[in-house]
Amino acid sequence: MTVETLATHRLHGGTLRYCRHASTSTGTPMKFTVWTPARDSQGGEGPFPYLVWLSGLTCTEDNFTVKSGAYEYAAKHGMAIVAPDTSPRGEGVADDPAYDLGQGAGFYVDATQAPWAPHFRMYSYVTKDLLEAVDGAFPLDPARRGIFGHSMGGHGALTIALRNPGLFNSVSAISPIVSPLNCPWGDKAMTAYLGAERAAWRAHDACALIEDGAGESFDEILIDQGLADSFLESQLKPELIEAAAAKAGRKVTVRRQEGYDHSYFFISTFIGEHVSWHAERL
Amino acid sequence: MTVETLATHRLHGGTLRYCRHASTSTGTPMKFTVWTPARDSQGGEGPFPYLVWLSGLTCTEDNFTVKSGAYEYAAKHGMAIVAPDTSPRGEGVADDPAYDLGQGAGFYVDATQAPWAPHFRMYSYVTKDLLEAVDGAFPLDPARRGIFGHSMGGHGALTIALRNPGLFNSVSAISPIVSPLNCPWGDKAMTAYLGAERAAWRAHDACALIEDGAGESFDEILIDQGLADSFLESQLKPELIEAAAAKAGRKVTVRRQEGYDHSYFFISTFIGEHVSWHAERL
Repeated sequence: MTVETLATHRLHGGTLRYCRHASTSTGTPMKFTVWTPARDSQGGEGPFPYLVWLSGLTCTEDNFTVKSGAYEYAAKHGMAIVAPDTSPRGEGVADDPAYDLGQGAGFYVDATQAPWAPHFRMYSYVTKDLLEAVDGAFPLDPARRGIFGHSMGGHGALTIALRNPGLFNSVSAISPIVSPLNCPWGDKAMTAYLGAERAAWRAHDACALIEDGAGESFDEILIDQGLADSFLESQLKPELIEAAAAKAGRKVTVRRQEGYDHSYFFISTFIGEHVSWHAERL
Repeated sequence: MTVETLATHRLHGGTLRYCRHASTSTGTPMKFTVWTPARDSQGGEGPFPYLVWLSGLTCTEDNFTVKSGAYEYAAKHGMAIVAPDTSPRGEGVADDPAYDLGQGAGFYVDATQAPWAPHFRMYSYVTKDLLEAVDGAFPLDPARRGIFGHSMGGHGALTIALRNPGLFNSVSAISPIVSPLNCPWGDKAMTAYLGAERAAWRAHDACALIEDGAGESFDEILIDQGLADSFLESQLKPELIEAAAAKAGRKVTVRRQEGYDHSYFFISTFIGEHVSWHAERL
């Protein structure tokens, strides 16, 4: 797959590229950013260990790239970061006027229901097309690959990693949706994309996946959650993943951060600790 | 002057506020952000030394706040940061369709020409209304105050500091317009705001101010300039301030950074060094 570079910027000593490529999974052009450091932690010029960041509702590839402040820490550890858009977009792609369904709200599943099924295949996009594209075009090491994300993207990171421990060596999340089976965002999106039969949702529910024994090879999963997050009690419910982990004898560390909300101000405060946490594992 | 808090976020252990207040200088409501740390470098709870950041063309108070990554470094040094909007805005305020004149392009002068004179008084706003408002409403130490900015805001920081060394103890700039007398942006804006008589522009030209002996109390002025900046040769011309400084026997350090452009990716790469540089002086 050919990757087209739309813009390039130097950033923290490395190279940031805004890219576009054709995805066979979504049947659309897809955008992502990729930042590569000048050197890895040993002074080498790659291939670099790397992290895939999955963003939350309403985001494109740009939000994390301009707001997270992650690249300073990636430079320190000699790691690359790839950040894709959150859904297919453009002419002929279904959409919904609500912020939590359709474009900007792909929920990292392969939709089976009309009108979403033709293009909303973000699970396949992230696990296949994106990885193939970036591994082929940039000096990245597929054997040292981690994944993390925020909110809907935290859900994406957790579920994709748990189902594909061979693809990813580490996984963390910030303010993630841990159980679409148990929150209004999940209920709405999964019903629309996967249909009313809730059994089909378990493959995209981090808590259910842990209960079902997925991803046992991860030594730990790190989660940061702000306690002033207005979605904490209604949507995010980190206690559910703690309970699932306890039941399954798995290590999921939820750090509750006093005073922090759901915004990029929270993400940018703790992103450095997440990058370092992954660096120890890659 | 009453300061209204529109939104509050915890960020890097401190408190970020989006604020609005009535400015007598501009005759409009004006917005700014203020971030205060939890503790200063000695563990005290304030008043904190602080930096005023002036943004460039097209920006509001939001761009720096979400993109710069400065607060991590401010937290490290126990310093606060205040970032105002770049012009008056709203109904009854003159504007121009071009990005480099009118709203979003105040150039930190007090306009004398129609239609700008009634509201475009950003020089008075920054040096009087803004400082009075933030000093009165937050635990800030007016005796330990620095100023910095980017592009048009670098011009603002340099000219405001040079003319008011009693108000500011330190000044630095990233990719600044150093001489409105000698670039198309300056020519257009100063003609519109101050009129065709170029002698009146000298009070808002960092090079002319240095030539005229303003701000001799600053031990050094730090400037970072990207060498891949598309405005470098046409608009920014840092060699002009080096020449003015050499002639006047003043220390202006221009660091030319290979490969960096005019964007916030450049700002965010070097903002930490600027915050530390100010911290040494405040």
